[in-house]
Amino acid sequence: MTQITHYFGAGPAALPHQVKQKIEKDILEYQNSGISILELSHRSESFSNILDQAKTMLRALYSIPDNYQILFMAGGATLQFDAVPLNLVGQSQHASYLDTGFWSRKAGDLARKYTKVKYVQGLDDTIDKVCCLESGEWQVDNSSAYLHVTPNETINGLEFVSVGDIEVPVVADLTSCMLMQDIDINEFGVLYAATQKSLGIAGLSVVIIRDDLLGPVNDHTPDLLRYDLHAEHNSIVNTTAVFACYVAQLMLEWVIQQGGLKVMVQQAKQRSELLYAAIDDNPKLVNNICKKNRSTINVAFNSADKKVIDQLLKAAEQEGLIGLQGHRYAGGVRASMYNGTPLEAAKKLATLIKAA
Amino acid sequence: MTQITHYFGAGPAALPHQVKQKIEKDILEYQNSGISILELSHRSESFSNILDQAKTMLRALYSIPDNYQILFMAGGATLQFDAVPLNLVGQSQHASYLDTGFWSRKAGDLARKYTKVKYVQGLDDTIDKVCCLESGEWQVDNSSAYLHVTPNETINGLEFVSVGDIEVPVVADLTSCMLMQDIDINEFGVLYAATQKSLGIAGLSVVIIRDDLLGPVNDHTPDLLRYDLHAEHNSIVNTTAVFACYVAQLMLEWVIQQGGLKVMVQQAKQRSELLYAAIDDNPKLVNNICKKNRSTINVAFNSADKKVIDQLLKAAEQEGLIGLQGHRYAGGVRASMYNGTPLEAAKKLATLIKAA
Repeated sequence: MTQITHYFGAGPAALPHQVKQKIEKDILEYQNSGISILELSHRSESFSNILDQAKTMLRALYSIPDNYQILFMAGGATLQFDAVPLNLVGQSQHASYLDTGFWSRKAGDLARKYTKVKYVQGLDDTIDKVCCLESGEWQVDNSSAYLHVTPNETINGLEFVSVGDIEVPVVADLTSCMLMQDIDINEFGVLYAATQKSLGIAGLSVVIIRDDLLGPVNDHTPDLLRYDLHAEHNSIVNTTAVFACYVAQLMLEWVIQQGGLKVMVQQAKQRSELLYAAIDDNPKLVNNICKKNRSTINVAFNSADKKVIDQLLKAAEQEGLIGLQGHRYAGGVRASMYNGTPLEAAKKLATLIKAA
Repeated sequence: MTQITHYFGAGPAALPHQVKQKIEKDILEYQNSGISILELSHRSESFSNILDQAKTMLRALYSIPDNYQILFMAGGATLQFDAVPLNLVGQSQHASYLDTGFWSRKAGDLARKYTKVKYVQGLDDTIDKVCCLESGEWQVDNSSAYLHVTPNETINGLEFVSVGDIEVPVVADLTSCMLMQDIDINEFGVLYAATQKSLGIAGLSVVIIRDDLLGPVNDHTPDLLRYDLHAEHNSIVNTTAVFACYVAQLMLEWVIQQGGLKVMVQQAKQRSELLYAAIDDNPKLVNNICKKNRSTINVAFNSADKKVIDQLLKAAEQEGLIGLQGHRYAGGVRASMYNGTPLEAAKKLATLIKAA
């Protein structure tokens, strides 16, 4: 009997088996079209249907109001780090970035090419465990073009769900928490996510943007980074990444079949709670994020004794649990559990964590 | 018996059946890795091997000298239209663009955001049939940062293979002629191609760049558009479009199995000559490109009588020949025949053209 393998990689992430089976069927011929899904034209009716269905499903899952557009754009979050200031700074002199860790800082650092960046302290590390400050405590300059936030920091595994009332438009990087957090879209002006975690494969981003934030853009904005052009042309500004959009559509369909966003959020909680309980029970292991901000998606932990980590990773590999190496900047172990990760995978890993 | 379908779409283009079969096998599990090719990490050894093999094969196919880097970048040619001036204009006041049709003009128009653009007359339309001027006749300003050329214009079907001796670095958009023309890399400073024609699927570009042209870049260059960063990080600047790179590797492998570049060029000639002979024999049909510049890749033609075109397209569809509608800006018929198109497809279409 072949051992079942569970993949905990940070992204590209595990896809549900049913989704992979559907894709497999469409490689030689897509829906009696005579051609492969890999050959489908971005100007075909079939692709138009794929985009429409994906947008309708995403809109339903998040209750996205009609005054928000949904865009599909080339490239991942790093390209969006540039697109955000290019599209949104406008006449303003600066943009604010909530600093909660590696990715939020990286987003701000790339924006510096186009505007002055004001970092807002987002962490309270004066206490033993790192916490995210509550939204009311953030010191945001209200003349900023926007406040950028990263609701899930993947490297240390820190998460928050609400930004509360902020006077400037809030831009959120949902790359690692798309369809995994119960957020209220109305709190945000723009939300973006690269698709390689909960929406399929790398090379594509989804952008949700409120109508009043579309254009005018910085003069130096590449066409393919313009939100207004993508809205105007229904995301077909050039040859769209057809296959990546198709996988995103299948992932959205799958989420709906599983019961929708609430079920995904619940499953993420279940999986992560199993791991955190095992970590907290083991005196050799440490996770230094306060409970209210522990990520339900990326569970990171370490040990003062490197051997404990090495042995745990080895034991996991023998059990068919792979992709658990911590981020190269943090070391230790990181279990990334996106929507494609079954509860069984978390159970198996929790058993190993207890025994470590 | 199911009728064999041949796809003549302009891109995303037809993939060889063997390539699709290989991909189909790797969707559920890639090479005993326990995970799907769709889940493979951009930081895995397997992906590193995919990139290395792709680069080695492309280098061999085009005899690319060691002082050229091969990069894989997010997005298609439209993003490269911005990347080229952002990376290459430097201290120069202007860039030159050889005007041979729609795509070369579009590339120049997008570059205007960053520099003054000087269009160089590339067509001789003083004669009955449109010709491309010979390289010696191009009026290129030698203080330009570079000369941009489009060796294959897909809409009207116009092609040239050599740029001769040009004093400034020549940048070529090979999107529609990658691995289909017998070019000498040494004539060029930079060559780029979106991958959805002869290298697989949309959402990725390959860039071949001479070392001395790497950096410094315009201050407003998004990280993901920087050639120097991609060279430095072996194309892994962020989460690379893993699956698109994998398909490109398979396409390169397939070209080598078929006998290499010379065989591809010969087959393109064979296919297109069949069609041009049939068009020239039919007084109802017209192709207005001079013989020396007729594209071996995109064969476009029209008729004064719209009914002739409509009937031909209908007859083709009944025979299982699809994707033949001309570009929306040109009308008529366009047969795009990239490397995945079998000779049999051209033969069938030629028969219909003769009978039109």
